[in-house]
Amino acid sequence: MNPNSDHAELGPALQSLIQRAEQALDRHLPSAGHSPAELHRAMRYAVLSGGKRLRPLLVYAAAQALGHDSATLDAPACAVELIHAYSLVHDDLPAMDDDALRRGRPTCHIVFGEAMAILAGDALQALAFEILADDAARQVEAATGIAMLRALGRACGAEGMAGGQALDLAAVGRHLGLDQLEHMHACKTGALIRASVQLGALAAGADDGMLQSLDRYAHAVGLAFQVRDDILDVEGESAVIGKTAGKDAAADKPTFPSIIGLDASRARLAELTEQALAAIAPLGTRGELLRELALYSALRVR
Amino acid sequence: MNPNSDHAELGPALQSLIQRAEQALDRHLPSAGHSPAELHRAMRYAVLSGGKRLRPLLVYAAAQALGHDSATLDAPACAVELIHAYSLVHDDLPAMDDDALRRGRPTCHIVFGEAMAILAGDALQALAFEILADDAARQVEAATGIAMLRALGRACGAEGMAGGQALDLAAVGRHLGLDQLEHMHACKTGALIRASVQLGALAAGADDGMLQSLDRYAHAVGLAFQVRDDILDVEGESAVIGKTAGKDAAADKPTFPSIIGLDASRARLAELTEQALAAIAPLGTRGELLRELALYSALRVR
Repeated sequence: MNPNSDHAELGPALQSLIQRAEQALDRHLPSAGHSPAELHRAMRYAVLSGGKRLRPLLVYAAAQALGHDSATLDAPACAVELIHAYSLVHDDLPAMDDDALRRGRPTCHIVFGEAMAILAGDALQALAFEILADDAARQVEAATGIAMLRALGRACGAEGMAGGQALDLAAVGRHLGLDQLEHMHACKTGALIRASVQLGALAAGADDGMLQSLDRYAHAVGLAFQVRDDILDVEGESAVIGKTAGKDAAADKPTFPSIIGLDASRARLAELTEQALAAIAPLGTRGELLRELALYSALRVR
Repeated sequence: MNPNSDHAELGPALQSLIQRAEQALDRHLPSAGHSPAELHRAMRYAVLSGGKRLRPLLVYAAAQALGHDSATLDAPACAVELIHAYSLVHDDLPAMDDDALRRGRPTCHIVFGEAMAILAGDALQALAFEILADDAARQVEAATGIAMLRALGRACGAEGMAGGQALDLAAVGRHLGLDQLEHMHACKTGALIRASVQLGALAAGADDGMLQSLDRYAHAVGLAFQVRDDILDVEGESAVIGKTAGKDAAADKPTFPSIIGLDASRARLAELTEQALAAIAPLGTRGELLRELALYSALRVR
């Protein structure tokens, strides 16, 4: 196992979908050779520097579980990853979490300066919607395309990711209950993870019942991913997880272990993983990749 | 004439459309009474604090010129204004233009802090796309809705507004030619102004020829607006224009007067205004509001 790889724990089908996503991202991002070159470079740096690619994988896996060809899913897969990347760039800014390292590399504002990092994030968000709208015009039924754009818009905004980050900022140094912590994560990271599954499912023509089952799956996986993150922050070695272990505790951020303890956090993780697997049980073997992603989110060591 | 009003130079039809836009913005923005309340407050502060509302007016006026009812244009009118408002919040940040005053009031980051201002901008951008996608699902033909979303996405991104701001940052302290200055403005403010006209025209079912005429109009108006801004920065009184006169020169930013002189700037402004009026001449009296907006952009004293 290569300790420098984010993906070493994933099987070959998901590994190959990661390659697919990274090629699509490279294609959709503006060229560093064209003006405004510095902005393009900052955008590419923020996106093409590794990462777990969980969100694109969920897009592909959800569609594949419904018998849909991955080859038609590149645009939504890119869109959710661009949104994720922009959120990391802005979260890392000095005024926010003030992080100098991300995935073992200097963060975007360290390399390109704060102004360019803010703009790169802004442009990545716009590009996500542009790619999805371009794709909607080309591929899927127009009404499906609009439903996908609505889902992404809702997931990014004040009731979704941006709202969750606001709750996160407000939580520093304060005591939160478990419900409040889970609500914050459901917004901050959960909304985009749910949108990823929803985009794949909508593109594959899922009916309302299937959309609801997959949404239960996505909600549980998103939260499990975060519980695992908090456990790794306590247990993990910095060299393996790629960021400073113990950072959350040092920053006085509420975490699952700090609120309910490590054992109860592990129990909550197991419970969420069971919920995720139960939600996709009716899919049978077609849900294999979704199952693998649920287990990966719960068991990963980085 | 009320010297505190941004709108004192506009006729009654446009004044009434401004009221329409401001009511729609108030309705579409999340309530300050709901969580995350601080984020919602920051978003509302950034949008509901005056401004010329040029972009919503262009949406309404373009649609009205093609015989379309303004009442169905609230969503695109809000979308372009939310994008404009978010761009001002981010442009005012300490890492960007570092402005403490906007329209005579403390800027968003002065009131709410930098982190919240970054998030409010991010959430406003997402809300713009969400509102437009929601509207596309409800009102217009799906394909038209998607075309509108594509136009907005393109206008906001690295080849549009965000790219223009990157060019603007890179231009500080450097010598630009007239072409470079106009290209920067065509991206930074022109792209969203063109998108505003395009959204109104698309919603009204404009054909390709009409879209092109209106785009020539919008390109000229966008640039004229900027030339007028630069002239006002030299000539205007701070109390009237609502920001510090001479600020651009002090910041060593290239402007039309600094590159081609004040007289040539006035001549360029007249030329652009003639181009704008010529482009909409075929509309006859139906183009009245568009004509008024072109003249306003060129002649305004604030």
